[in-house]
Amino acid sequence: MKAVVLVAPGDVQVLTVPDPEIIDPGDAIVAVRESAICGADLFPFHGFTPGFENGTVLGHEFVGEVVAVGAGVRHIQTGQRVVATSTISDGDCDHCVAGRPSQCLSRSLFGYSGVYPRLDGGQAEFVRVPAADRVLMALDDRVSDEAAVFLADVLPTGYGAIQRAGTRLGDVVAVVGCGPVGLMAVLCATRLASRVIAVDTIPARRDLAESLGATAVAPEDSLELVNEFTRGLGADVVAEAAGSVGGLTLALGLVRGRGVVSVVGAHFEPDYPLDNGHMFEREVSLVFTIGDPFNDRGRLLDLMVSGVIDPTVVVSHRMPLSEAADAYALFDAREATKVILTCSS
Amino acid sequence: MKAVVLVAPGDVQVLTVPDPEIIDPGDAIVAVRESAICGADLFPFHGFTPGFENGTVLGHEFVGEVVAVGAGVRHIQTGQRVVATSTISDGDCDHCVAGRPSQCLSRSLFGYSGVYPRLDGGQAEFVRVPAADRVLMALDDRVSDEAAVFLADVLPTGYGAIQRAGTRLGDVVAVVGCGPVGLMAVLCATRLASRVIAVDTIPARRDLAESLGATAVAPEDSLELVNEFTRGLGADVVAEAAGSVGGLTLALGLVRGRGVVSVVGAHFEPDYPLDNGHMFEREVSLVFTIGDPFNDRGRLLDLMVSGVIDPTVVVSHRMPLSEAADAYALFDAREATKVILTCSS
Amino acid sequence: MKAVVLVAPGDVQVLTVPDPEIIDPGDAIVAVRESAICGADLFPFHGFTPGFENGTVLGHEFVGEVVAVGAGVRHIQTGQRVVATSTISDGDCDHCVAGRPSQCLSRSLFGYSGVYPRLDGGQAEFVRVPAADRVLMALDDRVSDEAAVFLADVLPTGYGAIQRAGTRLGDVVAVVGCGPVGLMAVLCATRLASRVIAVDTIPARRDLAESLGATAVAPEDSLELVNEFTRGLGADVVAEAAGSVGGLTLALGLVRGRGVVSVVGAHFEPDYPLDNGHMFEREVSLVFTIGDPFNDRGRLLDLMVSGVIDPTVVVSHRMPLSEAADAYALFDAREATKVILTCSS
Amino acid sequence: MKAVVLVAPGDVQVLTVPDPEIIDPGDAIVAVRESAICGADLFPFHGFTPGFENGTVLGHEFVGEVVAVGAGVRHIQTGQRVVATSTISDGDCDHCVAGRPSQCLSRSLFGYSGVYPRLDGGQAEFVRVPAADRVLMALDDRVSDEAAVFLADVLPTGYGAIQRAGTRLGDVVAVVGCGPVGLMAVLCATRLASRVIAVDTIPARRDLAESLGATAVAPEDSLELVNEFTRGLGADVVAEAAGSVGGLTLALGLVRGRGVVSVVGAHFEPDYPLDNGHMFEREVSLVFTIGDPFNDRGRLLDLMVSGVIDPTVVVSHRMPLSEAADAYALFDAREATKVILTCSS
Repeated sequence: MKAVVLVAPGDVQVLTVPDPEIIDPGDAIVAVRESAICGADLFPFHGFTPGFENGTVLGHEFVGEVVAVGAGVRHIQTGQRVVATSTISDGDCDHCVAGRPSQCLSRSLFGYSGVYPRLDGGQAEFVRVPAADRVLMALDDRVSDEAAVFLADVLPTGYGAIQRAGTRLGDVVAVVGCGPVGLMAVLCATRLASRVIAVDTIPARRDLAESLGATAVAPEDSLELVNEFTRGLGADVVAEAAGSVGGLTLALGLVRGRGVVSVVGAHFEPDYPLDNGHMFEREVSLVFTIGDPFNDRGRLLDLMVSGVIDPTVVVSHRMPLSEAADAYALFDAREATKVILTCSS
Repeated sequence: MKAVVLVAPGDVQVLTVPDPEIIDPGDAIVAVRESAICGADLFPFHGFTPGFENGTVLGHEFVGEVVAVGAGVRHIQTGQRVVATSTISDGDCDHCVAGRPSQCLSRSLFGYSGVYPRLDGGQAEFVRVPAADRVLMALDDRVSDEAAVFLADVLPTGYGAIQRAGTRLGDVVAVVGCGPVGLMAVLCATRLASRVIAVDTIPARRDLAESLGATAVAPEDSLELVNEFTRGLGADVVAEAAGSVGGLTLALGLVRGRGVVSVVGAHFEPDYPLDNGHMFEREVSLVFTIGDPFNDRGRLLDLMVSGVIDPTVVVSHRMPLSEAADAYALFDAREATKVILTCSS
Repeated sequence: MKAVVLVAPGDVQVLTVPDPEIIDPGDAIVAVRESAICGADLFPFHGFTPGFENGTVLGHEFVGEVVAVGAGVRHIQTGQRVVATSTISDGDCDHCVAGRPSQCLSRSLFGYSGVYPRLDGGQAEFVRVPAADRVLMALDDRVSDEAAVFLADVLPTGYGAIQRAGTRLGDVVAVVGCGPVGLMAVLCATRLASRVIAVDTIPARRDLAESLGATAVAPEDSLELVNEFTRGLGADVVAEAAGSVGGLTLALGLVRGRGVVSVVGAHFEPDYPLDNGHMFEREVSLVFTIGDPFNDRGRLLDLMVSGVIDPTVVVSHRMPLSEAADAYALFDAREATKVILTCSS
Repeated sequence: MKAVVLVAPGDVQVLTVPDPEIIDPGDAIVAVRESAICGADLFPFHGFTPGFENGTVLGHEFVGEVVAVGAGVRHIQTGQRVVATSTISDGDCDHCVAGRPSQCLSRSLFGYSGVYPRLDGGQAEFVRVPAADRVLMALDDRVSDEAAVFLADVLPTGYGAIQRAGTRLGDVVAVVGCGPVGLMAVLCATRLASRVIAVDTIPARRDLAESLGATAVAPEDSLELVNEFTRGLGADVVAEAAGSVGGLTLALGLVRGRGVVSVVGAHFEPDYPLDNGHMFEREVSLVFTIGDPFNDRGRLLDLMVSGVIDPTVVVSHRMPLSEAADAYALFDAREATKVILTCSS
């Protein structure tokens, strides 16, 4: 089959590789229809993922059709249209039993190796899905492939930014960083908030955020706007989706006393200079979240089926699998907000 | 001044009564601009309120301008445009200190007597407001008098139905009874829910609910619709705003296992026949709520200022204070959804 | 094998029946060591369970050793000492996926038939356990068989009464009905509450409650005591574990405004006369709970391992399996608080 | 009167100063009976508090008797025995109205100046208490002066560490730093947790923690112990009460995935090197808390009245007001855990 392979850091190629096969009785094989490129794919692309194996098939956001299931699969059936969670979980470890699958002790991320055990991803014609009964969710006909791709990762992550912060109807919410995850946070926040302040340096991303219902602003003007909307108190919730030192510092400055800064941007700095005096005086909560597609995708699917939210507004490019190398280049250059690769031949 | 007085059960008259005066240092006098008729006003109107004193000035939903304040008032100032909470609270009793002003041990309801100590109401040119620093909230210029009237009672009550039920983004919510309170619950529920099913016998009320974003249905068709939207599971939350035995029974039949029936309809039946077998098997929660304008009006005002919600869509009649008797007749006959009385001369 | 069989209503016998066998790949066979009699066993005993099949093996609270597992069992192993959840759940239905296994769409209760699909129980030498990876939990060596039996049902149910009510450290909690479930609620409540008021008509049960740290009182004196401890406000939380009309009515009279009555007593009355006026004026929440051993047994096991709680204090009788008929008679007569049957030969 | 005055950094003296007088109608004058020295008093003592005015009377933890009230005080009466909140709040600002008095926009801390408007403290024979109806709470006769002193600050702060973390019955809780605040956190945690791991470098403080029910351990052994109690998962909640860089770093290493590090130690580092990679991978929440005596002292008083908790076990020294200089020296040298000054003549 054709698959998007990271041959070496910076070198994405579409290669012919062996078709995946069922290894464990709980596996399923999915014929991929659409797959997306995520910001997290850029870490191995840039060689930032320790131990990443060259040759790994990329991609953890995909929708497709089940074409085979192992003997131990009880519910998922061939012919079903499905979406997978970006990370797999076993359902049996202490974290899973306690309802925290994103912290599963044996988690792997599709399209990754090194930091987790290797698990070839879904930017390919076919993908092997372990623990298929847990990992896959059957889709409602009323939701398109392109919309459903967002259920794998970025939409639950954006939702998690808002939900884990305890956001309440009427709160003022700021979102720092309007890439795909940040825009998903905006999308969810606009349902709850009296005001959503979307902060980004890129005018096109601010325009997108405005189209979703936010008031968008450049970073340097964000504090003034938050103060205007909150009588100087600060935002109830600030979602940080920039994944940068500057983004986090800005976020911490926008939040009110006893407010929550909810981080969904990927951060790896070992020594971010946290202003503990500010944290203490304001009694701030700083909550990091990877996202929990397993627990949250059902309600997000319901919100898409009923038309309340439509994540596809952030799709900027739709390209065939064969053009994956170009797609990565565009996405890396921030010329694309979200790229969907069409995988079925 | 002119005031709407309940002369006797069934006999509402606009009479000339003495102007109210400051009695306690914490009092303020408000020149009323707009006042609304609430379903709760119909209980004394029909003689259902034990101990109600003939001669009480009616009305607990009003907006006006402060024209005088007592010596002990610290924050509220003459000239401010304000809305009052429908019930007053002292801020000092065990309930208030614990954050439960709707259960204040010395609560009174404007326009009521008998069940609470008499407190003349706001369907009048002027009204005395005790504990003005707590009871009154200054209004933002961007919100009209008519919209702000809803902050006194019905909007916080509808909000309370949704909030006290722990409703989460993406839930399926049913609202049984689409009078003013039920429509406020619909208004709030549509922000959070993937589906809002609005149930009423009256087609015009169903139309209003649909215009707010709900899917409206007659009672006899509601179970089928809920099941369709929930794969047979039942609604996550059912708000009961009908205030009737039939409404409550319907609500209990629509809710899923471990779901919440959130009652904001006024109920006084001493022996409602509760099906405990159903409650136990489904582990249902049944939560009664009067509404908490003191704690919730701030965030609801924010939602109106930003244009997220507009409660005035339910106003069907705007009439001068002098026509209050006709207004009560229309409202009692359910020919009016919500009546606003213009009180300033 | 020997098993406790309900031959007909009122007629419990220890009979020789065929040994259970693995039917489904997910099954395990457990050699039972200890099994308890629960109040819920008395419903079919008295012929109150519609459709109950004569011949069903009784018992849903049991601890034993795994002696065989099906081909699809992944984690549970032969030789492990285990406790089962009283009800089985599939892990795949909408309720289970949402974290509500007590409402599983295919739930069955060990030792029951009629209201659920028949599932022979654990008052026997051996028992077949479906979905063994979910239903069974391996036990820590530091917890005795007798203590672990409580994890199957009554301890999670008593815990659920306190937890589902949102009880906070320092609350005043009343527990109405001090049978085994009520005493488990007392045990959990004493960790959190400033005061636990235990209410029962039977002096011996009040003594047990006192030994667990409660202040015990007869029903007729309970309101005065609650008022004394709460300056007349009422209890923050009232757990109703009596399962009677009188118990529920008492409970509703003891709770404060905006408080929670948390029902874990089994109720089947189709027309309990609920005082809706009282519910509405006080904004009471009435929460029914069956109990959730699947989600809660882990933390309860931890509390037993560390010695914080010891449920065995309520065991009044330890009898061999062969004397099960006598045991049922004692328990039904309320001469026994909790009976443990020793099942291993 | 006699009062403990910070004459200059490092120079505490007991001086004769003018008796305080009622300035605002909401004021009360309290004749102090007992006052405690808090770790926060050491910041100005060491000259670390920007703008602190030499001459300020120290002390924010005190109990006494009301000897005079202003004309606007409605509830507090002369002759009442009372405790004050350590910080005053106005009840009217946006934070107070929203239920967050610890963030009050006009907060002051008794015994402080500089960072807040100067407010002379309670290590004196008399103290002026603004907003007396809010700041003072009348005491139950069954609670001693010495116990009640803890309600002013350290007990609500220790409680806040546990409560703001969402700690649940059965959780494993670690407390890093066993000074007075840490020990209060231990005291509260032992009610809820299956295990409390108390971490401190000083053996005497570990002994105190053990006497309260914790398992105490030196920092270097804490990770192993936490892992033993949690099967390697990490603690559900870690309270950091050390107020040091090392304490916070240790705390972050002890917490499980999706767990909470709850900081109540005073931190002022502008650039604590936070390991964002660790925060992100484990989805950690980092929650800073000053403490909320206004909202929490009532339930803590109830817990003391009923004998569930007794904070006085941490009192190591009881000294007359005249020996305050020695008391500060002992406390600063960590030779005293908690010092109570007897202030009434």
